[in-house]
Amino acid sequence: MNNPTIRVGIAGVSGYTGKEALSLLLKHPFVRVSYVAANHTQGPIGQIYPEFLYRTTLVCRKFSVADAVKHCDVAFLALPHTESMAVAGKLLKAGVKVIDLSADYRLKNAKVYTQWYGKKHQDARNLANAVYGLPELFKVKIKKAGFIANPGCYPTAAILGLAPLLSTRQDVVSMVIDAKSGVSGAGRKAAVELLQAEVSENFKAYKVLSHQHSPEINQVLSLLSGKVVQAHFVAHLLPINRGILNTMYVQLAKGISLGQVHALYEKFYKVEPFVRVHPLHSQPEVKNVAHTNFCDIGLAVSPDKKMVVVTSAIDNLVKGAAGQAVQNMNLMCGLNETEGLL
Amino acid sequence: MNNPTIRVGIAGVSGYTGKEALSLLLKHPFVRVSYVAANHTQGPIGQIYPEFLYRTTLVCRKFSVADAVKHCDVAFLALPHTESMAVAGKLLKAGVKVIDLSADYRLKNAKVYTQWYGKKHQDARNLANAVYGLPELFKVKIKKAGFIANPGCYPTAAILGLAPLLSTRQDVVSMVIDAKSGVSGAGRKAAVELLQAEVSENFKAYKVLSHQHSPEINQVLSLLSGKVVQAHFVAHLLPINRGILNTMYVQLAKGISLGQVHALYEKFYKVEPFVRVHPLHSQPEVKNVAHTNFCDIGLAVSPDKKMVVVTSAIDNLVKGAAGQAVQNMNLMCGLNETEGLL
Amino acid sequence: MNNPTIRVGIAGVSGYTGKEALSLLLKHPFVRVSYVAANHTQGPIGQIYPEFLYRTTLVCRKFSVADAVKHCDVAFLALPHTESMAVAGKLLKAGVKVIDLSADYRLKNAKVYTQWYGKKHQDARNLANAVYGLPELFKVKIKKAGFIANPGCYPTAAILGLAPLLSTRQDVVSMVIDAKSGVSGAGRKAAVELLQAEVSENFKAYKVLSHQHSPEINQVLSLLSGKVVQAHFVAHLLPINRGILNTMYVQLAKGISLGQVHALYEKFYKVEPFVRVHPLHSQPEVKNVAHTNFCDIGLAVSPDKKMVVVTSAIDNLVKGAAGQAVQNMNLMCGLNETEGLL
Amino acid sequence: MNNPTIRVGIAGVSGYTGKEALSLLLKHPFVRVSYVAANHTQGPIGQIYPEFLYRTTLVCRKFSVADAVKHCDVAFLALPHTESMAVAGKLLKAGVKVIDLSADYRLKNAKVYTQWYGKKHQDARNLANAVYGLPELFKVKIKKAGFIANPGCYPTAAILGLAPLLSTRQDVVSMVIDAKSGVSGAGRKAAVELLQAEVSENFKAYKVLSHQHSPEINQVLSLLSGKVVQAHFVAHLLPINRGILNTMYVQLAKGISLGQVHALYEKFYKVEPFVRVHPLHSQPEVKNVAHTNFCDIGLAVSPDKKMVVVTSAIDNLVKGAAGQAVQNMNLMCGLNETEGLL
Repeated sequence: MNNPTIRVGIAGVSGYTGKEALSLLLKHPFVRVSYVAANHTQGPIGQIYPEFLYRTTLVCRKFSVADAVKHCDVAFLALPHTESMAVAGKLLKAGVKVIDLSADYRLKNAKVYTQWYGKKHQDARNLANAVYGLPELFKVKIKKAGFIANPGCYPTAAILGLAPLLSTRQDVVSMVIDAKSGVSGAGRKAAVELLQAEVSENFKAYKVLSHQHSPEINQVLSLLSGKVVQAHFVAHLLPINRGILNTMYVQLAKGISLGQVHALYEKFYKVEPFVRVHPLHSQPEVKNVAHTNFCDIGLAVSPDKKMVVVTSAIDNLVKGAAGQAVQNMNLMCGLNETEGLL
Repeated sequence: MNNPTIRVGIAGVSGYTGKEALSLLLKHPFVRVSYVAANHTQGPIGQIYPEFLYRTTLVCRKFSVADAVKHCDVAFLALPHTESMAVAGKLLKAGVKVIDLSADYRLKNAKVYTQWYGKKHQDARNLANAVYGLPELFKVKIKKAGFIANPGCYPTAAILGLAPLLSTRQDVVSMVIDAKSGVSGAGRKAAVELLQAEVSENFKAYKVLSHQHSPEINQVLSLLSGKVVQAHFVAHLLPINRGILNTMYVQLAKGISLGQVHALYEKFYKVEPFVRVHPLHSQPEVKNVAHTNFCDIGLAVSPDKKMVVVTSAIDNLVKGAAGQAVQNMNLMCGLNETEGLL
Repeated sequence: MNNPTIRVGIAGVSGYTGKEALSLLLKHPFVRVSYVAANHTQGPIGQIYPEFLYRTTLVCRKFSVADAVKHCDVAFLALPHTESMAVAGKLLKAGVKVIDLSADYRLKNAKVYTQWYGKKHQDARNLANAVYGLPELFKVKIKKAGFIANPGCYPTAAILGLAPLLSTRQDVVSMVIDAKSGVSGAGRKAAVELLQAEVSENFKAYKVLSHQHSPEINQVLSLLSGKVVQAHFVAHLLPINRGILNTMYVQLAKGISLGQVHALYEKFYKVEPFVRVHPLHSQPEVKNVAHTNFCDIGLAVSPDKKMVVVTSAIDNLVKGAAGQAVQNMNLMCGLNETEGLL
Repeated sequence: MNNPTIRVGIAGVSGYTGKEALSLLLKHPFVRVSYVAANHTQGPIGQIYPEFLYRTTLVCRKFSVADAVKHCDVAFLALPHTESMAVAGKLLKAGVKVIDLSADYRLKNAKVYTQWYGKKHQDARNLANAVYGLPELFKVKIKKAGFIANPGCYPTAAILGLAPLLSTRQDVVSMVIDAKSGVSGAGRKAAVELLQAEVSENFKAYKVLSHQHSPEINQVLSLLSGKVVQAHFVAHLLPINRGILNTMYVQLAKGISLGQVHALYEKFYKVEPFVRVHPLHSQPEVKNVAHTNFCDIGLAVSPDKKMVVVTSAIDNLVKGAAGQAVQNMNLMCGLNETEGLL
């Protein structure tokens, strides 16, 4: 093959998302990881994360825009929310392709951003330039993009699970997204409520009807269905490391059979390499997508045909973050979409 | 106090529910465990379950109705579904009080039973005699009962969570019960899908819209709300040992404020010792009810007031099985409802 | 019985050990928890720990010696190491019985304390007054004591497992303590290395041959065996909440048969209510002692009879901390040793 | 590149080891998985293991020697112990290269085999032909071999951890291998003691001083050290899916410093791609080797220099089974040793 080597940098490599990106990119045949940085952690990667011992000589630096510009064709920003918007614009201006894995550029409306993330947006004019990086829905735009807002983990699972049904523009009476995520979704931060002794053998709902991923989900679902959608979203914390399973309940005004809805989903995702619609009467499980970029989908319909239950499973760190970012990078750089991901 | 000692037997002590009953009854101040039996396991309890080593000299026998009649005032039947109905009638006839922890007498309609449990009911005439043992709703009947159908674990959490709202007889547009249970709910049986290597770091929905606890839930909710209720019930398997958390979504035709619904729940359960309605904006967690007979309840309402989200948490082996059975026994025998349970 | 009610206070109730003490003491028939305090957390207990919701109206205060003196007959100090020594002496002086669950008074030599805990001892003159609270070995002293140094979790499991063998004063060629503990042993502190995402599906040794519990173990084993003992101690972190299992390897100069060593252990612990020597060829498991004050012990001997392998299991928060403290309190106050613990 | 495609078959693909082999081989650049079989499970791989859904069209057949001969250049036998010896000889005779992942050809003495595995060896004359497939020790022989006895998981971790030290032929006073393994090591069999509800939040020793991997370990360690070695081996069950950590205690007659022993290990494994000797004062963790073919090693020495503590961590399904088998295959087939494994 004749692919050039892409120089990729990762800002925020000390978090779980950044680490997952590093892990994927080190195995990518057309990538050289040329720069890794973080704000609060420095040193050889093999010391920070001994799983990389003797596998890379990369050294994590304090993040600097100038260094990133010098070393990178593409920058993965795996920074905490509200930190990406301080640097993304500068990198773009200097000609670096940017994939932002934070939430900073996902919401198109700066006011809505402030309402949910508690800070004024510092780079609002670039909101319109960020392409929402869900390849199964926006592939054409992504291929031409220089700037990607990589979707959130819950939204990825929710939107992929609901898109085929909502795109039929049926009348929806009520829509519920009951979402469950493993703890790595909360990031690598010292917090009592994320301790093993608090999380294991436990389960709880949190931010009930008030999770910051709600507006992101509603924004995209509204676009797809051609009208304002207000899904009822409840997040739960699973005592597992990685993985999301969303169970979604769509109460329809007019019924649809299981056969119809299954055919609809199979057709919708026919050419997509990373979405697997399960055979009839078979359900996705988190373990089947763990450490992969797949989104697995299951379907069921009530006897009166008016309640459609869609389940979708992803690995929150891969398809819900770093894997999707690599998929976006592949598309942006003219590579095969699945490169480094199968 | 002047309470007599009650002689209690446990059939099916080799399963998780039977073991939990044993554990609770051994600490009960007014009970002597007089008989423990199982169909496929025999021997000293301390050998079968080393956690009881040197704590009891009880020996597990092969179950026999005659032995049970001879030794017991009250019999706990912790047998597999479809095995209780072969013996409950005989015990009752001999004057033994029976608390059946299986599903055999929960459904009032023998045909519905057959449809969901796959076997003709062998003791249908006793269905009408079995009191559904959910003390928070049917305490008066339980106090007079000689025969209790102890509720299922999912139904206990679902019904306690929904009863206050449905008893207002509001118009319900759509009702979803998204239920998650730890593995002990599946019983102590050798099955590949229950292995640690299959369950841990995993999560999945199962029996989607087709779980055998659905008709039990709908039967009681219909009674409470005065009309036929068809809740959409989906069960999930949590990688924890014990505990259930149900997240329930009730879409109402007419709105209700969070303050109103919270006041309603507080009033409904005001005198109940085992239901804890959480303070506003606080949510139940499985770990807070583990190893207890509590049912914890949380509430949220959507901005348009038409979606009420109720969360309820119980320990499936305690409030969802053996603890509730003890609570029923206390009521049947004229003891304090909480005896041996706090 | 005619036992008076003992007023007990807990300093450090916001940690796992303090919480466990509260849980046990609330159920103790002759105790009234009269005071709960912490240094960094205040408020109603039911808010700090929702598992206590509606079960107690206790409010956690900022710890003050004056308040403790006013409200308590007995004070449980569940404070971090190096904080107890600032207050224990004052409480004792004011006539309060003190059970210190920290490490501050376990080591008899103030210099050794400083070497391992990194701080000069502020109350060295009270070291001699503190009775080491391992009831199976020092019961007579404990009954007369006003001040208890409650043993560490690893030392409890190690010493109970080795005491019968070492008390025979055999020649020991080599002694290894391979210890494994659940995460609650590390306390309730926000630390990245204790996150669920770091601990679950993981296992590691830590502080290899350099754990601060080594000198405590060696101090007591030396006392028992009548000569200086230097056991090789390695701690490991188990991905479970609670429980310790120690596997101990004693290479003897002269052999001993399994029958002999088993008889020795059975005799040694014959009258002890909380030590269970397993039947021959049966091994302890953490789950059998979880939430109990038991120490379970298993034995094996190599074919040449010179290697004795002792396994011991405890719940680190109960027999390894709060339960043992209650056992000590019972003895100090003339109660039945098992009161509130079975 | 000019490597030919190797046709590889897997017998016993329905177990965890067989599945791991399939997973690795599907990604191997010079392998075509040409045949998958099992004795008790048949059907499309994507149905048996939905993680392979749409990733392979392979169908699992009932195992037949004739089919294997027809389709395979190399056969991986991931059959239960005592089943491999019925077929390995026939495959070899037909010219198929065989890598046996069972224990059937690891012990050189047929009588010792019978003693530990309870069955007469049916193919004893091939015992001498089987090369013990631990590449770090026997690479030259493996390269020329047509038949590999792939090492056990515990022995791999134990031998790699002890080899450098024992090869110095020091006088050893006592040697302990305290081994801990995740549950996948027990295989994918329906057994109550492997249920999530039994294993999670639990920990125990099992087969204390009587595990069937003992003679395998002692056979190789004796070879390395030039005298009969009798290590004291105790296995424990960790509540994790995959991973082994062995903590090994070697009491020496004559002391060695940490610096010396560390230099010794670094030199011994200098050119080995899959053994990572940790930097001084750093310890291996199971999570760092999970899903990899690495063996990570840590070292500590007691103050008197006579006790060396070696810790070694592997993934029991990869370096302890399927990954090591691929490594052996690579060597046997003249490929780069790391092909498909990094």
